Amino acid sequence: MSDGSEPSRLAEKVREGELRLHELEDHTDSETAAAARRQLLEAETDAELETIGDFALDAEQATDANVENMVGAAQIPMGVVGPVQVAGGAADGEYYLPLATTEGALVASVNRGCSVIAGAGGADARVTKSGMTRAPVFRVGGIAEAEAVVSWVGENTERLREAAESTTSHGELLDVDTYVVGDSVFLRFVYDTKDAMGMNMATIATREAAQVVEDETAASLVALSGNLCSDKKPAAINAVEGRGRSVTADVKIPRETVEERLHTTPEAIEEANTRKNLVGSAKAGSLGFNAHAANVVAAAFLATGQDAAQVVEGSNAITTVEARDGVSASDASGGSSDESDGGLYASVSLASLEVGTVGGGTKLPTQSEALDVLGLRGGGDPAGSNADALAEIIAVGALAGELSLLAALASRHLSSAHEDLGR
Amino acid sequence: MSDGSEPSRLAEKVREGELRLHELEDHTDSETAAAARRQLLEAETDAELETIGDFALDAEQATDANVENMVGAAQIPMGVVGPVQVAGGAADGEYYLPLATTEGALVASVNRGCSVIAGAGGADARVTKSGMTRAPVFRVGGIAEAEAVVSWVGENTERLREAAESTTSHGELLDVDTYVVGDSVFLRFVYDTKDAMGMNMATIATREAAQVVEDETAASLVALSGNLCSDKKPAAINAVEGRGRSVTADVKIPRETVEERLHTTPEAIEEANTRKNLVGSAKAGSLGFNAHAANVVAAAFLATGQDAAQVVEGSNAITTVEARDGVSASDASGGSSDESDGGLYASVSLASLEVGTVGGGTKLPTQSEALDVLGLRGGGDPAGSNADALAEIIAVGALAGELSLLAALASRHLSSAHEDLGR
Amino acid sequence: MSDGSEPSRLAEKVREGELRLHELEDHTDSETAAAARRQLLEAETDAELETIGDFALDAEQATDANVENMVGAAQIPMGVVGPVQVAGGAADGEYYLPLATTEGALVASVNRGCSVIAGAGGADARVTKSGMTRAPVFRVGGIAEAEAVVSWVGENTERLREAAESTTSHGELLDVDTYVVGDSVFLRFVYDTKDAMGMNMATIATREAAQVVEDETAASLVALSGNLCSDKKPAAINAVEGRGRSVTADVKIPRETVEERLHTTPEAIEEANTRKNLVGSAKAGSLGFNAHAANVVAAAFLATGQDAAQVVEGSNAITTVEARDGVSASDASGGSSDESDGGLYASVSLASLEVGTVGGGTKLPTQSEALDVLGLRGGGDPAGSNADALAEIIAVGALAGELSLLAALASRHLSSAHEDLGR
Amino acid sequence: MSDGSEPSRLAEKVREGELRLHELEDHTDSETAAAARRQLLEAETDAELETIGDFALDAEQATDANVENMVGAAQIPMGVVGPVQVAGGAADGEYYLPLATTEGALVASVNRGCSVIAGAGGADARVTKSGMTRAPVFRVGGIAEAEAVVSWVGENTERLREAAESTTSHGELLDVDTYVVGDSVFLRFVYDTKDAMGMNMATIATREAAQVVEDETAASLVALSGNLCSDKKPAAINAVEGRGRSVTADVKIPRETVEERLHTTPEAIEEANTRKNLVGSAKAGSLGFNAHAANVVAAAFLATGQDAAQVVEGSNAITTVEARDGVSASDASGGSSDESDGGLYASVSLASLEVGTVGGGTKLPTQSEALDVLGLRGGGDPAGSNADALAEIIAVGALAGELSLLAALASRHLSSAHEDLGR
Repeated sequence: MSDGSEPSRLAEKVREGELRLHELEDHTDSETAAAARRQLLEAETDAELETIGDFALDAEQATDANVENMVGAAQIPMGVVGPVQVAGGAADGEYYLPLATTEGALVASVNRGCSVIAGAGGADARVTKSGMTRAPVFRVGGIAEAEAVVSWVGENTERLREAAESTTSHGELLDVDTYVVGDSVFLRFVYDTKDAMGMNMATIATREAAQVVEDETAASLVALSGNLCSDKKPAAINAVEGRGRSVTADVKIPRETVEERLHTTPEAIEEANTRKNLVGSAKAGSLGFNAHAANVVAAAFLATGQDAAQVVEGSNAITTVEARDGVSASDASGGSSDESDGGLYASVSLASLEVGTVGGGTKLPTQSEALDVLGLRGGGDPAGSNADALAEIIAVGALAGELSLLAALASRHLSSAHEDLGR
Repeated sequence: MSDGSEPSRLAEKVREGELRLHELEDHTDSETAAAARRQLLEAETDAELETIGDFALDAEQATDANVENMVGAAQIPMGVVGPVQVAGGAADGEYYLPLATTEGALVASVNRGCSVIAGAGGADARVTKSGMTRAPVFRVGGIAEAEAVVSWVGENTERLREAAESTTSHGELLDVDTYVVGDSVFLRFVYDTKDAMGMNMATIATREAAQVVEDETAASLVALSGNLCSDKKPAAINAVEGRGRSVTADVKIPRETVEERLHTTPEAIEEANTRKNLVGSAKAGSLGFNAHAANVVAAAFLATGQDAAQVVEGSNAITTVEARDGVSASDASGGSSDESDGGLYASVSLASLEVGTVGGGTKLPTQSEALDVLGLRGGGDPAGSNADALAEIIAVGALAGELSLLAALASRHLSSAHEDLGR
Repeated sequence: MSDGSEPSRLAEKVREGELRLHELEDHTDSETAAAARRQLLEAETDAELETIGDFALDAEQATDANVENMVGAAQIPMGVVGPVQVAGGAADGEYYLPLATTEGALVASVNRGCSVIAGAGGADARVTKSGMTRAPVFRVGGIAEAEAVVSWVGENTERLREAAESTTSHGELLDVDTYVVGDSVFLRFVYDTKDAMGMNMATIATREAAQVVEDETAASLVALSGNLCSDKKPAAINAVEGRGRSVTADVKIPRETVEERLHTTPEAIEEANTRKNLVGSAKAGSLGFNAHAANVVAAAFLATGQDAAQVVEGSNAITTVEARDGVSASDASGGSSDESDGGLYASVSLASLEVGTVGGGTKLPTQSEALDVLGLRGGGDPAGSNADALAEIIAVGALAGELSLLAALASRHLSSAHEDLGR
Repeated sequence: MSDGSEPSRLAEKVREGELRLHELEDHTDSETAAAARRQLLEAETDAELETIGDFALDAEQATDANVENMVGAAQIPMGVVGPVQVAGGAADGEYYLPLATTEGALVASVNRGCSVIAGAGGADARVTKSGMTRAPVFRVGGIAEAEAVVSWVGENTERLREAAESTTSHGELLDVDTYVVGDSVFLRFVYDTKDAMGMNMATIATREAAQVVEDETAASLVALSGNLCSDKKPAAINAVEGRGRSVTADVKIPRETVEERLHTTPEAIEEANTRKNLVGSAKAGSLGFNAHAANVVAAAFLATGQDAAQVVEGSNAITTVEARDGVSASDASGGSSDESDGGLYASVSLASLEVGTVGGGTKLPTQSEALDVLGLRGGGDPAGSNADALAEIIAVGALAGELSLLAALASRHLSSAHEDLGR
């Protein structure tokens, strides 16, 4: 197989067992190592890895921070939706949101939703809770000792804070929640990690704090993550208490806009939302009461360099829809709606959206360009405001996606109903 | 901003409101349209979209099948793990698994796990259940009518099958499960979609069958998806009944291998798994009883062109670990383990892994090359075997990831304990 | 302490260690044994057990079938609600429902609901699914063996049926569902147990079938219940797939009735249901999307001799409420509602209501009298119809409780709002 | 039907529509009213209500506090288990626990477990969290207003405390947690209700505080309970954060005791617990990771006058079991176990056990006698200690039940395995 080139020679050495696949960077630069691996794979399989090798990444940088055994890059088509006006706590203005996806029709659908939201004057959005978590599990001698450890933690939060914050220049320990199951004690550390998604920061800080717990109490650390964090698993604790950002976007859309642009009625959209997103999800034993929030979260995550596996928590979202008219119950009962001719209220609340604008995948070339489109690359001023704004804009994107899909489901039904009437 | 080029002129038209962002393909080819959008975004924001525009995709193809409002591509670093021996129902042999991720250390960790599995002679894997679902929700007049509709469906499955299968040359309707909540009736259609992930196929077939239900019963379709499917939401119905492939991988690792390669003991890994993945997840109200299965699922999905939002269901996984010795309870009680000096049994069971080797993102250039690395591009022989094999290999990858992370957690603990002893 | 009576002498023997507490029935009749235990407890503690000893049970019968170490009886106040008209699949006519409870206002509230339902012409009810389950867990050698066992079960359902049904004259095996997690195989046996709640019948039949599985495959039984049953735990598998009876009751109430009898509006009740029972429960990570169905289930269970611990599954209920008017969306879109001036549609769907009219606590004196009030003591004709009817009537009771509480919540709000307006 | 007696005459009036069923107490005493209702039911149905009418309750008292439309009482057989030594935070000493149940073998099984625990020197128990909750839901104008309300609540907790505590002489407001979903704001009020279960106290106090929120912010109360409480529904928020008492009991049992008294091994019990209670419950999508904790909770609740519908939350329990030997991993890694020849560690952690020793059903005659058996009738000193102790003793009872059933499952398996070997 060897063509005499360096990649070829290195691939040969791996084949002959002289080198192991992950040791290539010890002998050459990252780009050449990646080429060697491609050669090896091409030789071992029937693959030709031309496009995987045709990347616009800096191989050295990617190898340092993002990947090992690098062979190249996966290319995911990227589109854009917007502009859409977002009135958020941090985001404020018109935004284009880049979305990377392989699912045809998704970008078009979200873009339609954005267009409707824009036509209604834009959406509101707020981060209502914020905090990255890490929850180690400790073994104790039994429940009596567990109580003593929990008690010690309650009285020594300041010491734990000092230990935790000694490892980070940005992060702040907000809280330590305690949970006991038999002879296992879980401590859920909650951090303000500013513009970083913060998983690494939280892990390092927690390791230091956990050491103090081990030193000062009878508790023994079993695992630095005890799954009450809970990272990359669909867990009620995140849906209830939040992780990363808890963020809501909402919008009021005039009835005319719904009818003209979405070809259905507020009432039909409400019914689809109630039977599908609320009742259907209830019956399914779901933590996700939405139509497809994960689609927008995933596409925005891929475009902007977030952790794709955290789409899992990102899908902990509840969509609400209410059709309103001039004599609606909410008006009669003192509610605050005041649209004279009614329309549609819609919201999406994402309980645990974990995003950052610094660190992780955000530094990669296409990803940082996408953040530039949003005006959110790097740290915000004040710290944390860029990640807040990103969360708010993604929430508005998710809202757009919900509106568009619910309307499509509802109008498809209406149209078939209309045909029925025409028979 | 205009430099007189075609993209520049088109971007200008969009800025001036003569064209809308999504109408560019009506006036030029996809590549130029994407360039025009990049120019627009660069003008409207401070971004420079050089690397986003430097893609190896065929813009025409991507625009047709995967994305709208295309601007270019996101590039995600891709590494590779393996080789690892997989003895599956469909997979059989040594495989390299491509993983696309931005999370540093992930590929190295999974590769370490693969190496340990390889050292133990490889892993077993099996798809134990298979079926893509779509569950429309219908409105009926009340519970009496609901019962009549459910009854009609039970007696007319054959008619529904004919209608559903009339829309597809490959798919087969396996089952129609009925669920009633008040005056909502949910029909969960289950299909064998062969080597396709099958969401589109299932949707189109179900639309046809739903029409029959509307024609023949009093039920009115409210939404073609009623969230009992359940797509891209973390739902117990998928964790319990499965969606896509339910697949398990497992391995037995000799004690010596655990100690030498993972620097810990079977007992310590079992304890970490029990307290973290079982008890911790139980306390967290989780549907995911694993350490980080979603990481491997996400990275394999991105590399091979799967739907990134379906990582949500992919994380419905249970990891089990059992330390065994020569006089273990399982031996004494007639169990089937027979290792003379014991070791570690570990498994990962993914309840709802939705994968395909045809359609969707699998045709994109880097993605199809990644499938070639696995020898699984396109339809299998027999039909469905390629997607089965892909599921089995991803399960083995997830198992490798679990082993490696659990061992890291356990050994870190042990090392700190050892230091304690040394004080 | 001894007063020379036989209970006194026996109590003395227990105190002196000559007899153990549970051995008393070996030396005397049940009534005397209970008296002896009361004497012992009175001597060992400061209690006087006069009313506990003043019971109307047959001690012999209770000791045989319901309790050990008997000391007497707990007395729970019993009230009655109704009459309410039930148009069910099995129930048909006017019923009074006895409720035993210690929670003041509960019976009054449910009775108000029944009165409103009666005023609307009664409720519909249907059992939509039925089957008692028992799910043993087996250990196998690994996933390859698991697949073989699952396959064997699929091909030998008839043999399992024969084995299972050999133990019972009434029960029928309906289904055996298989679930695999690593090297654990769970078989969920589903039975038609007719008018018996059927847990014992299902357990005995499953033991016999499990023996066949052990004899014919490599699987070893670990526990006759593997928690996929799932008995007396709040589990999604029951909420999704049902256990015992899945039963729904619903009613349409004219707007005037709502306003005059419940002092609120259909719209306000719908809003309370949506924000509390649907959205609130969604946010709580709940399997119960209702206001207080468990209250009615518990009170009816205590009155009629059901298993109080199965209230757990009985609370897996979804309540839906829809306000309707003359030009409602559902009318416009071809729905089946036809009330000229609209009103309220309400339903309660209990997924896993486990009830029986034979066996267990149903034979006890006060309990069988309560079943007589319903006309449902003992086996039905056809077999199973009495338990079906009981399920339907309890569902209507739960519906009454939901309506009454939701209306109270909604009207309390309205009244305070009205006061606000008066300021 | 009339025999000329007062009950007979009153029943006649009800039949003729002159009186309504719930108005009887307006015309006569409670005992006579109950008799009249029994006569009515006997006339309307084929029932004879002799034993229902043969009660030891004070009808007047029960009608005042516990039941309406009273007809008599349900009598549930009561047994007793123990004595068992409990070393708790509040409980301390040997206790007999009364259990009321209709399920044969339950009391015997729990008693066997108590006997084994007693043989091991008793169990430890601790209440690790305490607080009764009530969570109203408010409507706001949108997410921007929601943020303002949440912010106001955070800054005015003291005012809410004053309002809430103005309604109660005992209760203390511990916390107000905020949750936002779209335009719904949920405030979860947490109270220390001392020896009362506290649901009523919490409701009344919260109503007062909710009025302040309505007065001072733009929020409108929709329902005083918004299901984030969450009362009588199986909700993750309770399993995670607790409600009422979070209480754990645990025990270490020597290997010899396990083998002699439970006829099995620590390893076999651990395996049954892992495959059934952990893995099985995980696969079932359960919030209950135990064998049958609800059985003991229900039986103790009925005996001591607790709310039977709160068995739902009482079943949110996790059981852990660990077999230990002389060279166990936990010893090697610095754990605190020190049994030279090992044995069994077992624990039950009930997340949300709602109990009281004052109010509700605790004042009824048989129930208060049962509390006397425990020495826990009425308020404790310090306040709250009686309810704490009751929670701890019930937890030990649940632990006994778990041990006994797990051992029965494990030994049955072993015995059949032994027979296999004998073939």
